Amino acid sequence: MVPRLDAVIVGSADNAARQYAERQGEECRALGLDFVLHEIHAGAGYDDIAGRVLLLNENEDVSGIMVHLPLPEGVDTYKIQRLIHPKKDIEGVNPANIGNIVYGRSSLVPCTALAAMRMIESTDIDLRGKVAVVVGAGNVVGKPLAVLLMRAEATVISCNVHTPDMPGLTRKADILIAAAGVPELVKADMVKPGAIIVDVGVNRVRDDDGATRTVGDVAFDEVSQVAGWISPVPGGVGPMTVAALLSNAIDASARNRSADV
Amino acid sequence: MVPRLDAVIVGSADNAARQYAERQGEECRALGLDFVLHEIHAGAGYDDIAGRVLLLNENEDVSGIMVHLPLPEGVDTYKIQRLIHPKKDIEGVNPANIGNIVYGRSSLVPCTALAAMRMIESTDIDLRGKVAVVVGAGNVVGKPLAVLLMRAEATVISCNVHTPDMPGLTRKADILIAAAGVPELVKADMVKPGAIIVDVGVNRVRDDDGATRTVGDVAFDEVSQVAGWISPVPGGVGPMTVAALLSNAIDASARNRSADV
Repeated sequence: MVPRLDAVIVGSADNAARQYAERQGEECRALGLDFVLHEIHAGAGYDDIAGRVLLLNENEDVSGIMVHLPLPEGVDTYKIQRLIHPKKDIEGVNPANIGNIVYGRSSLVPCTALAAMRMIESTDIDLRGKVAVVVGAGNVVGKPLAVLLMRAEATVISCNVHTPDMPGLTRKADILIAAAGVPELVKADMVKPGAIIVDVGVNRVRDDDGATRTVGDVAFDEVSQVAGWISPVPGGVGPMTVAALLSNAIDASARNRSADV
Repeated sequence: MVPRLDAVIVGSADNAARQYAERQGEECRALGLDFVLHEIHAGAGYDDIAGRVLLLNENEDVSGIMVHLPLPEGVDTYKIQRLIHPKKDIEGVNPANIGNIVYGRSSLVPCTALAAMRMIESTDIDLRGKVAVVVGAGNVVGKPLAVLLMRAEATVISCNVHTPDMPGLTRKADILIAAAGVPELVKADMVKPGAIIVDVGVNRVRDDDGATRTVGDVAFDEVSQVAGWISPVPGGVGPMTVAALLSNAIDASARNRSADV
């Protein structure tokens, strides 16, 4: 059976979401996955969207489901996400899949956090006995990633906007993940020489001449002089997250065919 | 409706579990909660235990379910625990309830981690901008507690047996939680003066004269000279966990009566 990814988008979603959904379709087709985009009319409410998710849960042809954000005003994103069957939740947004990280059970992991982990693993570092610092403690990346790093038996330090003496902590990091959403927050003097740096930030900034560009949470030019390994922005975690989503879709397809999930 | 806690115990469970279940019954009755103990015959397998859990999920009179450990050899504890309906999972062992910690949705929190948080909160400390160090990264306490502390916007450091220079990290702690299962691991020189110390450890040790006693993961006599606040062992987190379980049972009862869970 060919893995099939079903994406739900609501008519009122912004253009960025729509572009993302279209790119997703192209990438699925390039990999030989089926892709079905469900467009729900603008003005749809909770019942319309929830009903569609339940229908896709029931459909045995569907391996993976993702719901594009933003949802219309007044629709609670969490209530929709928790309806996605954990076996088909390729974005890893259902609380059961987040909890499974703690248990270390094979399951679908939140895909941005998974992308960051895959990048760290690609360096062949053994996380045991290493210090991993996560700057930013958001629900989508910071918290799940901290737990994934605990699972890998790293010593994990989670920082947030209230952290006192953050540079004193980030300089301890053998692995430093920036997921704060603050342009170029991490400077060279906050980094231990040779550290692995993963930049999850995607920030649009405007230069003095009025032009806009995309930068990460890491001051790439100066930090790349100090780091042992560094992911760029744009590029880096962004495309890797798309790959993690598709990898989850294939996993889900394989697993939905086995009884023991 | 009176909250009702249903506990499942398998005949082969050890005496400690049986004593715990009986004490639990007394505590429920003292608080005016109903308590029903389901004894499943020794030699029961997965199907027997799983079936009982599903039956209790369906029973509207049951507010909370807990399954006593250990289960018979060959029965996967995780597979039983994840069957407990999240609304009735008063121990907080279903992955969905662990994932809900990340989302910060009101739900049933793993009860030992909840007990430790309640003790920290009892000191009236504002966790924002404070450093909380969790020694031990187990699934039952260490990892869920680290996430609860992140939710409270603390800077969180998770240490394990592989952590290099642990004293250098524990001395940064405004709040230090010991959950490593190592007798008297935390000494006075690892503690910042005035810190809040929560000791989750329960270890049986044998003295030179052959007598056994229960100690925590903290060297209480010396650490209590330095700490600002410290929980004892025995006492402390142990009885607080029973209280957290009963508090969860009452929460579950209230919530099961409302449609929006």
